[in-house]
Amino acid sequence: MAGNSFGQLFRVTTFGESHGKGIGAVIDGCPPGLALAQEEFVREMARRRPGRGSFDTPRKETDEVEIMSGVFEGLTTGAPISLFIHNQDADSESYEVIKNLFRPGHGDYTYFKKYGHFDYRGAGRYSARETVARVAAGVIAEKLLEPAGIKIKAYTIELGGIRAESFDLEAADENPLYCPDSKAFERMEQALLEAKNQQDSLGGIVEVRVKGCSQGLGEPVFDKLDADLAKAIMSVGTVKGVEIGEGFGAARLKGSENNDSITPEGFRTNHAGGILGGISNGDEIIIRAAIKPIPSIGIEQDTINRHGRPARIKITGRFDVTAIPRIIPVLGAMVKLTLADHYLRYKVTREGLEDSF
Amino acid sequence: MAGNSFGQLFRVTTFGESHGKGIGAVIDGCPPGLALAQEEFVREMARRRPGRGSFDTPRKETDEVEIMSGVFEGLTTGAPISLFIHNQDADSESYEVIKNLFRPGHGDYTYFKKYGHFDYRGAGRYSARETVARVAAGVIAEKLLEPAGIKIKAYTIELGGIRAESFDLEAADENPLYCPDSKAFERMEQALLEAKNQQDSLGGIVEVRVKGCSQGLGEPVFDKLDADLAKAIMSVGTVKGVEIGEGFGAARLKGSENNDSITPEGFRTNHAGGILGGISNGDEIIIRAAIKPIPSIGIEQDTINRHGRPARIKITGRFDVTAIPRIIPVLGAMVKLTLADHYLRYKVTREGLEDSF
Amino acid sequence: MAGNSFGQLFRVTTFGESHGKGIGAVIDGCPPGLALAQEEFVREMARRRPGRGSFDTPRKETDEVEIMSGVFEGLTTGAPISLFIHNQDADSESYEVIKNLFRPGHGDYTYFKKYGHFDYRGAGRYSARETVARVAAGVIAEKLLEPAGIKIKAYTIELGGIRAESFDLEAADENPLYCPDSKAFERMEQALLEAKNQQDSLGGIVEVRVKGCSQGLGEPVFDKLDADLAKAIMSVGTVKGVEIGEGFGAARLKGSENNDSITPEGFRTNHAGGILGGISNGDEIIIRAAIKPIPSIGIEQDTINRHGRPARIKITGRFDVTAIPRIIPVLGAMVKLTLADHYLRYKVTREGLEDSF
Amino acid sequence: MAGNSFGQLFRVTTFGESHGKGIGAVIDGCPPGLALAQEEFVREMARRRPGRGSFDTPRKETDEVEIMSGVFEGLTTGAPISLFIHNQDADSESYEVIKNLFRPGHGDYTYFKKYGHFDYRGAGRYSARETVARVAAGVIAEKLLEPAGIKIKAYTIELGGIRAESFDLEAADENPLYCPDSKAFERMEQALLEAKNQQDSLGGIVEVRVKGCSQGLGEPVFDKLDADLAKAIMSVGTVKGVEIGEGFGAARLKGSENNDSITPEGFRTNHAGGILGGISNGDEIIIRAAIKPIPSIGIEQDTINRHGRPARIKITGRFDVTAIPRIIPVLGAMVKLTLADHYLRYKVTREGLEDSF
Repeated sequence: MAGNSFGQLFRVTTFGESHGKGIGAVIDGCPPGLALAQEEFVREMARRRPGRGSFDTPRKETDEVEIMSGVFEGLTTGAPISLFIHNQDADSESYEVIKNLFRPGHGDYTYFKKYGHFDYRGAGRYSARETVARVAAGVIAEKLLEPAGIKIKAYTIELGGIRAESFDLEAADENPLYCPDSKAFERMEQALLEAKNQQDSLGGIVEVRVKGCSQGLGEPVFDKLDADLAKAIMSVGTVKGVEIGEGFGAARLKGSENNDSITPEGFRTNHAGGILGGISNGDEIIIRAAIKPIPSIGIEQDTINRHGRPARIKITGRFDVTAIPRIIPVLGAMVKLTLADHYLRYKVTREGLEDSF
Repeated sequence: MAGNSFGQLFRVTTFGESHGKGIGAVIDGCPPGLALAQEEFVREMARRRPGRGSFDTPRKETDEVEIMSGVFEGLTTGAPISLFIHNQDADSESYEVIKNLFRPGHGDYTYFKKYGHFDYRGAGRYSARETVARVAAGVIAEKLLEPAGIKIKAYTIELGGIRAESFDLEAADENPLYCPDSKAFERMEQALLEAKNQQDSLGGIVEVRVKGCSQGLGEPVFDKLDADLAKAIMSVGTVKGVEIGEGFGAARLKGSENNDSITPEGFRTNHAGGILGGISNGDEIIIRAAIKPIPSIGIEQDTINRHGRPARIKITGRFDVTAIPRIIPVLGAMVKLTLADHYLRYKVTREGLEDSF
Repeated sequence: MAGNSFGQLFRVTTFGESHGKGIGAVIDGCPPGLALAQEEFVREMARRRPGRGSFDTPRKETDEVEIMSGVFEGLTTGAPISLFIHNQDADSESYEVIKNLFRPGHGDYTYFKKYGHFDYRGAGRYSARETVARVAAGVIAEKLLEPAGIKIKAYTIELGGIRAESFDLEAADENPLYCPDSKAFERMEQALLEAKNQQDSLGGIVEVRVKGCSQGLGEPVFDKLDADLAKAIMSVGTVKGVEIGEGFGAARLKGSENNDSITPEGFRTNHAGGILGGISNGDEIIIRAAIKPIPSIGIEQDTINRHGRPARIKITGRFDVTAIPRIIPVLGAMVKLTLADHYLRYKVTREGLEDSF
Repeated sequence: MAGNSFGQLFRVTTFGESHGKGIGAVIDGCPPGLALAQEEFVREMARRRPGRGSFDTPRKETDEVEIMSGVFEGLTTGAPISLFIHNQDADSESYEVIKNLFRPGHGDYTYFKKYGHFDYRGAGRYSARETVARVAAGVIAEKLLEPAGIKIKAYTIELGGIRAESFDLEAADENPLYCPDSKAFERMEQALLEAKNQQDSLGGIVEVRVKGCSQGLGEPVFDKLDADLAKAIMSVGTVKGVEIGEGFGAARLKGSENNDSITPEGFRTNHAGGILGGISNGDEIIIRAAIKPIPSIGIEQDTINRHGRPARIKITGRFDVTAIPRIIPVLGAMVKLTLADHYLRYKVTREGLEDSF
């Protein structure tokens, strides 16, 4: 109710702040009997860690995920799984200077208005650090989706206005921006270095594809699969837009162009992005997210302080030039959480069907 | 859980099918003491009714909303309010010919795969007719928002590739497409007539603006106001994309361009679209939805039948050329439902604050 | 959230008032493909109807259940099923005289304090009439439980202090109090007639037994099967106590007496009442409910009016001498709703298990 | 959904096992601005700790509650509060001998049937140790209720068949059984020592009283205050029955005896136990719980093993002779959690009223 949980049957609650003891997640509803080892979190955590590219500020975050409950003798038990990631590199001193100022583009102002305080130490609850719990929970969701043959892949298709034009998804893993076009990657990297020099930041577009999703996921009329995916994606801090399939492009097509004809072998095209009537149609699910430029910039900006007085703010210390690529595993995780939840919900309906027919 | 409810504290459940007895809604959580008369539904129902423009197929749908419970002596009682709209113009004969064919772009195929059947009589549960219940529920949400000074307005900014370039929101009510640019409207109307002649359909973009929303609505980290709005909008059948504020445009801006500086008088710009950190910041909330072209077209298309055999389908009978303008009050209603829910949730947090400080 | 819904996966929402248009229910989460006909409601509705015994005030309530949605060609579709029962015998005149008085033992006083009004016309929302919707929804729950071999039976074991001493459950259906002891029934009937002459009322104890419930229903630690049954039963207006198995009697047994030893053939005794650790153990589930005497009595009582002034109240018109037997199908329905919900929830866990092992 | 959360607006999720790393709770929905210090958990934790009486097995459990998130500068922030209590005295060796046997009266059998495994190390998730998280969460609930003047007190009124006959609630805190009758306490203590010698166990009855609860808490028709209290109480492992006010006694009263007449000064009696129509009436709320004798006994019993073969089981090692008094703070906590949740829900309705009138 207070907004820190996601999902109905596969339900994830995150807790923790960027400069407190750490970040955690409780996953309630994970079926029993899934093999789960602490090591399985390492790869995803590494993808979320900063310092992959030359444009990135290196940081000492090992982000080790500790399983606190719900696993016995290497298997999930059906009891809630709780995960905890200790904060290690919690240097809150650099925040002292801006302690009373609202950073433009951040939640400082709205948190203060809503909760009567804001956490100047790196944003506290509304820090991007919270997403580490989502990525960890996503690893468990993936354990549920894997046996069903469902695979999720997220990658960068635009950054700083530079668009990927070739799509070699294998290649995407080989560059630090997860860009499927290695030439576009080079230009993106260049743009990032320029923005970094200017103490400015860049946005971009991330695409997520789901392969192997069976037909039938989605609970109309309100919990349509695309509706829940839109919420999942938009719940990530820097996202300002979500599209499914043809997305905003569909607004400019005619019905005869946008409809995907059906053949005995499947859909001839995939303008729908794998979802019809709010239910997965068996085709690839395609989602795109618009990522705004990170609001923390070194350029001086106008703002006000806690007392409403005008002030100038200049953010120093470490910060990323773009939310990409660190947001990539987060968006992937949100899609995994959504699908794991809808997968279990789908099973309830099918179960009923099999019982009654 | 089965997806037919929306909202947490202001909770709407819809039921009914396009060719059954009618469509209904139950609203649980409406506070007691609000004046509510049957007449108040008339205006919104009229906006949703077809036959406003020359491009539109006139239909006899009076869509009278009957209040079945929850109102006593003209006031809401705090008990669940149920609304029912009888189906009147339920001609299911024209559907006989396509009884066994999956219409491309519709939910026929996925409903059949998920539920073991599909309702060939005008889509049944997944018909756009279900949205009549949302519009009716939105009227009650508005009763809650009005005293708080919150106003919602939806209008067309693009149709068939033609974009509104002037924004006279008063004028928007004067043309049947709710377009704020009367010149663009004329070109849009022309495009609709052409598409109609071609038996094809068009898509477009609708914008919704919220004025007067106080600071503090939104429940991070998952139930951010923008996340819940994205879900609300995407849960409407023909929507394929959602943006907040600068939206996909933000992906191409620099941080220094996209950040809204703060002054003692408020935000200098509104790239954020009125939401920061998932919480309303007091500025106008701006949402855009990409509407796909209506999949029902008269042009013959490839499809398959229930048994997986190839077939040709040609949809005859009445259908709209575009989901716009009928989707306008539906999108407005979804924003109202979201805000009414978050308004009550916001009150819980504030109540706590006032008690404890 | 506002308390008018019950269940998670098999979710029932009721609406309506005793002297409004009628009473309804929406069932969201009923699996598709179950055969359901309007006639199936008749038997249960008849059991709830007054006028079965000589102690009872006859009333003209036919209570026909109308299926408003969710059924197509005789089968449930997976869409929400809505049911509506029109009010017919809505004589609100007799309430005029006590319009401003709070009836002792009723919700008048608390509804007025909570919602700012109370519905003097036969209690409105908090009338026992609301339970007609629960009984109707219970019929659908039963459709889900029947194929799984789960059977629910409710009967009277005590009334006005007279306790059934023999337990012939077949015989219970043959007397108007559903009492399994025909001799005790005669004494109960006598006691009811005496109480009626005194214009007073009586309470009693109802027992519900569930046969054929498989092992594994219940979701610890909070949604234990017994916890959810206790809530279900206590949510019925006149219930003041709930017991499972040995119940309050267990408080006086030793562990060696109360433990049910386990043998390869099953449990040797059933003090547990079919539930261990919050999960059904395959044995009969046994629940007992304490029913208070109906608060509407003809004897004059002290009370206050809306303005807090002292007053005398004497309730005239029709009312029952006891909530039994009319509460019998209601308690049965609440157990059915609870089990249908937990049956679907159980399937989710098992599904997971079967996938992973 | 998977049953590990309690409450709607004040929502508590517990996690952890008796012999894992520890037990935790996440509280989502606690309003911001409440002062909360780690020390405040000490008193309640001490009450739950074993070794208070001569009949009790002393154990080294310090049960220090660590606040992991949600508190900043000594105040709750509105973000989820997570609490963690490390397991210290986790000796799982003594369980080896009964590793494959289902203990009668415990959840071993049903957990095995439901989840495909059971945690022989002291019951794992279904250990009474889980309740430590409930007691910790209850401390936070109390912080919310205190300023509203709501006080909760739990005490023993019956043990091993011995009933308290005088009610000096001050005295209850002075004996290790929290019995308000010091003479009855002595006999209870004697009975416990005898049962201990016999390697048997005893049950009893606990009463909980709520003073100072304002009128209006409770959300009919399903989330009645008594219904939610019944669930809360019954969700505690050893509870087999719940009563409100007159409880099962009401079944034997006449309406004229059981009705509480209303006077300008309040209710003349309190048979209702402070709840009318599912809503608190401003009077004391009175709840009683039947506690079964602890199933772990030293006397040899019949059971079966994992493979369904007959076996004899004799439980050795430490265990309590009765769940009382350790269950006292747990039941108190469950009442606190229920009231905190309903207090916030009540505020939503009132807020509406104040806005609209």
